[in-house]
Amino acid sequence: MKKTFASDNYSGVHPEVMEALLRANTGHAGSYGADEYTERAIAKFKTYFGNDIEVYFAYNGTGANVLGLSSLTRSFNSIICSDLAHINVDESTAPEKFLGCKLVTIPTKDGKIYPHEIENKIQRVDDQHHPQAGVISISQSTEYGTVYTIEEVKAIAAVAKKNNLYFHMDGSRIANAAVSLGKDFASFTRDAGVDVLSFGGTKNGMMFGEAVIFFNPAPAKYFKYIRKQGMQLHSKMRFISAQFEALLSNDLWKRNAGHCNNMAKLLEQELRTSGIEITQPVYANGIFAILPPAIIPALQEQNYFYIWNERTYEVRLMCSFDTTEEEIKNFGSKLRELLKKSQ
Amino acid sequence: MKKTFASDNYSGVHPEVMEALLRANTGHAGSYGADEYTERAIAKFKTYFGNDIEVYFAYNGTGANVLGLSSLTRSFNSIICSDLAHINVDESTAPEKFLGCKLVTIPTKDGKIYPHEIENKIQRVDDQHHPQAGVISISQSTEYGTVYTIEEVKAIAAVAKKNNLYFHMDGSRIANAAVSLGKDFASFTRDAGVDVLSFGGTKNGMMFGEAVIFFNPAPAKYFKYIRKQGMQLHSKMRFISAQFEALLSNDLWKRNAGHCNNMAKLLEQELRTSGIEITQPVYANGIFAILPPAIIPALQEQNYFYIWNERTYEVRLMCSFDTTEEEIKNFGSKLRELLKKSQ
Amino acid sequence: MKKTFASDNYSGVHPEVMEALLRANTGHAGSYGADEYTERAIAKFKTYFGNDIEVYFAYNGTGANVLGLSSLTRSFNSIICSDLAHINVDESTAPEKFLGCKLVTIPTKDGKIYPHEIENKIQRVDDQHHPQAGVISISQSTEYGTVYTIEEVKAIAAVAKKNNLYFHMDGSRIANAAVSLGKDFASFTRDAGVDVLSFGGTKNGMMFGEAVIFFNPAPAKYFKYIRKQGMQLHSKMRFISAQFEALLSNDLWKRNAGHCNNMAKLLEQELRTSGIEITQPVYANGIFAILPPAIIPALQEQNYFYIWNERTYEVRLMCSFDTTEEEIKNFGSKLRELLKKSQ
Amino acid sequence: MKKTFASDNYSGVHPEVMEALLRANTGHAGSYGADEYTERAIAKFKTYFGNDIEVYFAYNGTGANVLGLSSLTRSFNSIICSDLAHINVDESTAPEKFLGCKLVTIPTKDGKIYPHEIENKIQRVDDQHHPQAGVISISQSTEYGTVYTIEEVKAIAAVAKKNNLYFHMDGSRIANAAVSLGKDFASFTRDAGVDVLSFGGTKNGMMFGEAVIFFNPAPAKYFKYIRKQGMQLHSKMRFISAQFEALLSNDLWKRNAGHCNNMAKLLEQELRTSGIEITQPVYANGIFAILPPAIIPALQEQNYFYIWNERTYEVRLMCSFDTTEEEIKNFGSKLRELLKKSQ
Repeated sequence: MKKTFASDNYSGVHPEVMEALLRANTGHAGSYGADEYTERAIAKFKTYFGNDIEVYFAYNGTGANVLGLSSLTRSFNSIICSDLAHINVDESTAPEKFLGCKLVTIPTKDGKIYPHEIENKIQRVDDQHHPQAGVISISQSTEYGTVYTIEEVKAIAAVAKKNNLYFHMDGSRIANAAVSLGKDFASFTRDAGVDVLSFGGTKNGMMFGEAVIFFNPAPAKYFKYIRKQGMQLHSKMRFISAQFEALLSNDLWKRNAGHCNNMAKLLEQELRTSGIEITQPVYANGIFAILPPAIIPALQEQNYFYIWNERTYEVRLMCSFDTTEEEIKNFGSKLRELLKKSQ
Repeated sequence: MKKTFASDNYSGVHPEVMEALLRANTGHAGSYGADEYTERAIAKFKTYFGNDIEVYFAYNGTGANVLGLSSLTRSFNSIICSDLAHINVDESTAPEKFLGCKLVTIPTKDGKIYPHEIENKIQRVDDQHHPQAGVISISQSTEYGTVYTIEEVKAIAAVAKKNNLYFHMDGSRIANAAVSLGKDFASFTRDAGVDVLSFGGTKNGMMFGEAVIFFNPAPAKYFKYIRKQGMQLHSKMRFISAQFEALLSNDLWKRNAGHCNNMAKLLEQELRTSGIEITQPVYANGIFAILPPAIIPALQEQNYFYIWNERTYEVRLMCSFDTTEEEIKNFGSKLRELLKKSQ
Repeated sequence: MKKTFASDNYSGVHPEVMEALLRANTGHAGSYGADEYTERAIAKFKTYFGNDIEVYFAYNGTGANVLGLSSLTRSFNSIICSDLAHINVDESTAPEKFLGCKLVTIPTKDGKIYPHEIENKIQRVDDQHHPQAGVISISQSTEYGTVYTIEEVKAIAAVAKKNNLYFHMDGSRIANAAVSLGKDFASFTRDAGVDVLSFGGTKNGMMFGEAVIFFNPAPAKYFKYIRKQGMQLHSKMRFISAQFEALLSNDLWKRNAGHCNNMAKLLEQELRTSGIEITQPVYANGIFAILPPAIIPALQEQNYFYIWNERTYEVRLMCSFDTTEEEIKNFGSKLRELLKKSQ
Repeated sequence: MKKTFASDNYSGVHPEVMEALLRANTGHAGSYGADEYTERAIAKFKTYFGNDIEVYFAYNGTGANVLGLSSLTRSFNSIICSDLAHINVDESTAPEKFLGCKLVTIPTKDGKIYPHEIENKIQRVDDQHHPQAGVISISQSTEYGTVYTIEEVKAIAAVAKKNNLYFHMDGSRIANAAVSLGKDFASFTRDAGVDVLSFGGTKNGMMFGEAVIFFNPAPAKYFKYIRKQGMQLHSKMRFISAQFEALLSNDLWKRNAGHCNNMAKLLEQELRTSGIEITQPVYANGIFAILPPAIIPALQEQNYFYIWNERTYEVRLMCSFDTTEEEIKNFGSKLRELLKKSQ
């Protein structure tokens, strides 16, 4: 299939990750994580986040998010997040079903939620009739391709701490955020007050696999059981671990995410120079723009992408580690050609 | 790590499966199953089971079992299975948590359950106070390495039909059963009255991935939602599908399982000729045997394996697609050497 | 305790209901609903709603709502309701925990939700990633004391029907709505397109007990199991049934609700003549008003009531079947006395 | 309806309880337990169990059991109980659905479970694949009408403590056990090592209501939320509390249970003198006996009772607080008359 701007999960596996999979495919290895690959992958994570963390691998982002949140909640809790959060609109009702919790949502314009909005949602504390706020969850980078600054994360952590809540981060595109901020992972996660992080692999060049990272040891206590019960424990674990080892080696995560982000900037430029309205600031690998409806089908043929909002014709264009400059340029040319024709 | 008889998930990925993964890693592909690999893999399944089936891929066996059962139950139902069933003792409480159902278990000596035992467990029908029997679930091959005959499966299906129950099969080692029976897959599944089948991939040479196959279309109706909610929907689905396509091509499933089963027969012979008691008939790729406790540690060093029963020193020896004749011979030699020494 | 305007559940049991309880306390009766009282109570319901309904009794409103919704949903569904709905803010996370569903909420100013708002919330139909709208739930009368007209209910039913959704009504104060509308129960429930109704007893003079009424027989199929599993099946059922029989006899429900509503009107008048702002139209037995904060404590001593909104000093005053004209008058006098003093 | 030996929930409400309900029906009272009746009822419980307990009221036995167990478990736990336990066979799948836990059952001949049997069920500790034993639950008196001695309870508590498990007691008929043992409640509950107790009211002359009593404060921490979420929080709570106050005053609980137990002894005598086989020792208010099938229907007409085992014609005869000596005598006469005829 021709390459697309549809999603960063339309792309395949980065060659260095694939090589790691091939190398890991030798002899036998202990199952369920009792293997040297898993040991090494966890050691890699520790070089980024410190030695006193706990790392567990899961299959996918929904699994990483829901299980991470499960370790932070009891069923009478609520989870405060943006109304655009992946956990709210793109994970079926997995959070409600697995956790029993209510998601209390904050309408967002830029994908972020802010301290005063969060505080407004912490209501009726100690009231047995009302869901009790238990966790704040944010996505970094957000579903709108925006990125929280370190200060913004810290300010939310302060709200969490003050109100005795846990702080969860959905980092399915965390590498894009790190590159965008020009900061190391720890700076805007553990150092900024996050308790549990979903660290994304699949969208950054892996075949499958996400990590749940605990900076706060208490909620990790029973996580091995929660993961198994949550149907997210892989038997041939070495094949997730080897991928993460590769992703965290030789700055592959940074090269991939950096490339994505650069391609997004380039694409933004192509759109802007074509007079297209960009609806969100471009920080990571996603661009949101309003296109004239008439040209959308032909442009989708050039490189497929999704219409985000059927009413406003806002579209979402996602760049991947394998997006090329040439594709961007050709897309820009096609866009301008279609715009001209449609006048 | 040295090869083992620990579990068929200690082995890696079969080279033909790995090649399929490499071939699938080109360009972009629709995510979540909207890709040509998935289309082709499903078509392969249809050549074995008929065109009027529905096939969904999941990450692992627990996922395939629990989600398949979810499509067959309501939360007030019970599921009748052997007390040794993987769903009962090796999937944490995933079935109870996700389904809300009770597992009603039948003590088993050979891993199988039998019609009259099942009928005894169908109790208090229509009684609102009591869990209502909803599904019979069997494993083929069983956790004890035994295999139901076609007639045995049909007899259970008759109980299911008579009592208006669904019939589920955990086929995480279905290929071993098919080879052992010398029959095609359909003969002891759909043709024998099974409604939903977990078709195993991981234990037969895949990296990850299982299939849930519906022979009865009604319960498949909402399965796509159940799978997503169950956190078992892979984004880069082509990488599960390509593996299944390879496994179902050129009889790879049969070559792998046939090899396993043959190696198990050879190992059985080595054990028997050494005077070791075999506790279960060897039909598939697992051997259960009583070893003198004193020699177990040294023998585990030769090729690691698990003690199944700490009190009786019954051990489980599993053969994989990559088990070699030489390993079996060497294990036999080591066994005899240790037995001699220990006299 | 002195009588209050705190809630209609601060009041006790109406004498006619208490007499019915005394009368029912003779000899033995079949448990779990197999008794003549239950038979007669259900027959009473049928005189109001028609013979082809199914009636089940539950302990409380949360139970009636959650179990009724359970019969209408699968765990991947969402339930569309007002953000003020009792199921959303006053039942802990019972709906999420028991159903697995997401509540999708519509901000409300008057306690009601409207067809176009509902349609906006029916999103991404057939999209496996997104909660699938399954039910519309409204409260009649609403948590703000307002009442849907028959036409408004019908318009929502039309949205439900068009979009293949079920329609649920939380009628914990349904008698107040019926009296307010001057219409019989059926007119704004089954005849208007409602599928399942929670029919309230406790707030209208009963000691305990609510009814779940099915106008659509299909979802009632397994309700007896759902109720038992939901821990809402009473053993000595006759003592719920006898209460309902009394409530539905000699227009007791109407006398009680009519009295409540009249008292609320009287109280509204007292407040208005004292220059107090009434924030919601008074249709049923609740009045919402803005009071000067300084006088609230003293006024609460006269007759206790709750502050609804801590920021605006909006208070909620609820009338019960046992509220007296004298109490209202005295409350009005006290109010005016306090207002005078505080000037 | 004529009186029966069907169940202790076929009987109505004891007059002293009913009087308490009438007395409580005056004026307004705080809802959800914020009332003086609840305060006094809890104080009564403290006179029996000590001041450092926590007491919560629920609607029914299923609710009390499931919610109590919810406070003691996480969803990956198992609960060890007898295969006859009410939680296992008479509460639909409420425990599995609400808790997510597995019930691990011990076959019982006398309704009791014993320390060595329990220890055998504590398996694969720390093994993420296997349900982790979390609670031992026993019924006192048991479903077979037998009663654990204080020493037996203590021996189970020792197993619980040694294995770091909680200890739960289903005391839906706890008064019958206390009278049978001739001991105070605390002696075989808190003093014997029980952590959480379901204290039954309904079967001992109340209209509705059970209590969950915590001797161990830790698991009570979040119970108010669990109860609300579990749909077991009554709004007009005074009407449960007033009943418990009456039951625990003037030894009503003891008079009722003592009477039941005596009537059961008398009935046992009638059966034995008629040559009927009694299958369980009679300690509390239930008698299990084998009747000739031919005479059962006519005997059921005299006083209805349930056939416990359709194959052996074992029947269960339950005495209530309102069973009279005359009824027992007449039943015995009828029995002998029928036996004579059938010879």
